[in-house]
Amino acid sequence: MVLPIPAGFRFSGVHCGIKSDPQKPDLVLVTCSPASVAAGVYTENLMYAAPVELDRGRTPSQDVRAVVVNSGNANACTGARGLADAHEMARLTAEAIQADQQQVLVMSTGIIGEYLPMDQIAGGISSAASCLGNGELEWFAAAQGITTTDKGPKTAHREIVLDGQTVRVLGMCKGAGMIGPRMATMLAIIVTDAQLTSETAQATLQTCTDASFNCISVEGHMSTNDTVLLLASGAALDEPLAGSALAAFAEAVKEVCIELARQIADDGEGASHLINIQVSGCATETDARRIAETVAHSNLVKTGIAGADPNWGRIVSAVGYAGVAFDRDRLGLVLNGFCLFQNGAPVEFDAAVVSQSMREQRETMVELTFAEGSASARFWTSDLTVEYVRFNSEYHT
Amino acid sequence: MVLPIPAGFRFSGVHCGIKSDPQKPDLVLVTCSPASVAAGVYTENLMYAAPVELDRGRTPSQDVRAVVVNSGNANACTGARGLADAHEMARLTAEAIQADQQQVLVMSTGIIGEYLPMDQIAGGISSAASCLGNGELEWFAAAQGITTTDKGPKTAHREIVLDGQTVRVLGMCKGAGMIGPRMATMLAIIVTDAQLTSETAQATLQTCTDASFNCISVEGHMSTNDTVLLLASGAALDEPLAGSALAAFAEAVKEVCIELARQIADDGEGASHLINIQVSGCATETDARRIAETVAHSNLVKTGIAGADPNWGRIVSAVGYAGVAFDRDRLGLVLNGFCLFQNGAPVEFDAAVVSQSMREQRETMVELTFAEGSASARFWTSDLTVEYVRFNSEYHT
Repeated sequence: MVLPIPAGFRFSGVHCGIKSDPQKPDLVLVTCSPASVAAGVYTENLMYAAPVELDRGRTPSQDVRAVVVNSGNANACTGARGLADAHEMARLTAEAIQADQQQVLVMSTGIIGEYLPMDQIAGGISSAASCLGNGELEWFAAAQGITTTDKGPKTAHREIVLDGQTVRVLGMCKGAGMIGPRMATMLAIIVTDAQLTSETAQATLQTCTDASFNCISVEGHMSTNDTVLLLASGAALDEPLAGSALAAFAEAVKEVCIELARQIADDGEGASHLINIQVSGCATETDARRIAETVAHSNLVKTGIAGADPNWGRIVSAVGYAGVAFDRDRLGLVLNGFCLFQNGAPVEFDAAVVSQSMREQRETMVELTFAEGSASARFWTSDLTVEYVRFNSEYHT
Repeated sequence: MVLPIPAGFRFSGVHCGIKSDPQKPDLVLVTCSPASVAAGVYTENLMYAAPVELDRGRTPSQDVRAVVVNSGNANACTGARGLADAHEMARLTAEAIQADQQQVLVMSTGIIGEYLPMDQIAGGISSAASCLGNGELEWFAAAQGITTTDKGPKTAHREIVLDGQTVRVLGMCKGAGMIGPRMATMLAIIVTDAQLTSETAQATLQTCTDASFNCISVEGHMSTNDTVLLLASGAALDEPLAGSALAAFAEAVKEVCIELARQIADDGEGASHLINIQVSGCATETDARRIAETVAHSNLVKTGIAGADPNWGRIVSAVGYAGVAFDRDRLGLVLNGFCLFQNGAPVEFDAAVVSQSMREQRETMVELTFAEGSASARFWTSDLTVEYVRFNSEYHT
């Protein structure tokens, strides 16, 4: 397979010494020449990290030249010095690629509450700038470099023809838990050679994030650093996308985002199952989403699925405390295709058969149906295993 | 110690065959003669169980003669047949003690989605009615009989002098998780010989529940059966309590409720720490409570404490997504008496010393201070251990 790398971008990932393992890249550059439109969606956590504060002030933008990312240190809860460090990362990057520092965005992920080792970062930026490239090798070095406790790099892509031109969408992300021994966060960068205005870029990214990265959880702990960026070089098109072509493009971006988001839930720390929750028949999308999210956050649901237990009582009782009114007598539940609960009452089923399907499949499908309307929502999460707890409790500061 | 058993009440707990172990009582009666005022507070889960539906319709009341409780089966998600079974439990109890069935309340806890074994229950009610008594032995048989996965019975009591008369408050409760292999729920019964009106009983119970049972969680999964009942025989007083005497009484009931609630959090399935979260300096009590609850529900906070890790980043970042606005630069965190975070910035501390205190103490104190106002809240939860996950995932239906 040849990756469809969008025109206009270059990538690199190097080791500069934030992570202790010299085999692991921890400093990443994504650059665009001449410049790209950029949109960003950020954590809603009030304890947002310094790079989030910096990026928020610079997006949406029509004039971004680079994103610099470090992993191993979140630069979160680091006060004024942390914010100055984030600005310095942007300045050093701008200097290395001959850009203006206002044209640089910054991302960080890793340990909370420690200051960045700026000497290493300065060296890393200089070294990363010297090995930028637009091949698969450089792309994967970058995708690897933004990870922390992830099992491997996470990427997804689409190629579509719009207005007679081939447009490429390529995304990378990281995330396996809010913290995996105190490593944090989900980050994603999506690059495309479609031409967008900063307004259409921002609107597209917000819609796609709502349907993907905002529909996943590992343990429901919102990070201080979550950031999703969309960079559009415009190199493949002469005019900004609009109308049906823009809609088709947004659909491709959404597919890429969902593919990336599912990989995060699937790679949840210690996870043995990806849980796919589909809620339909609600009065509003907000209702459907609240129900899906409540079920996704139940430790009892998550431990039950880890044990391949078709324990519908845990799922149905979680639905009951989502804070959404519904007709109890019309509630239905289908698990891995088996109907376990219908019209508000249990259905006889062969627990051994359902349990076997749960053991054999990595993905557990939970379908909840209501009779309140036609709104629906999807949510992905990971199950809760002994390994998750061990991982997050046996590490000591 | 001689338990202060309120005048007017009798108790019994017998085994009738719902639980498989014949050593474990599973059918409990609490009776009052001539009759008691009764108040009830119930789960907000929309999938509330049949006994909750029955009790809700009968409280507050001035005329309750008995509470019948079974453990081992929640009679939840059992539709019309389940509701008929709950009514039949009340009718059988009324018949056994020569009362009217409207004078009987019902509680159930245990497996969800199975019908009650009514033959065993009928036998149990008859046998329980024949061994009612007002001694400690009968009280503890009843307190044991309402438990499921609890390590033992949970009781608390106070004795106070009001208007020159000694008044007794005695409570029992059960709960160790929403489900412990599919066993559910928290139940509590508080009996007193104070004289109350049904209005003051209901108001007192609601206030006390808000400050106790509504401030605890094990994993945050709201049960279908949660029920707290207050029964007041009036035997110790000639007049209903009012004014300052009523306030003093309410304080005693609150203390009993908090003592019981703490026992539930401390007995959380697999728990190695009781976590006590105190939030102060908020604009409103709702804000303080939301922050405390958000921290209490974070699996990362709970696994960190299980591992005796003074990981303030997990706590502070959970505060950040509670949905409450606050001044980041005034946030402070004290853990087991050690200041870890002050004025929105990390404080240097000896992690080994703090970790040791967490290892040595069963109770971990988390104090969060804000500068928004003077409202505060307390919340208790249990930590999240490998044993919790094992317990809830290795059981198969």
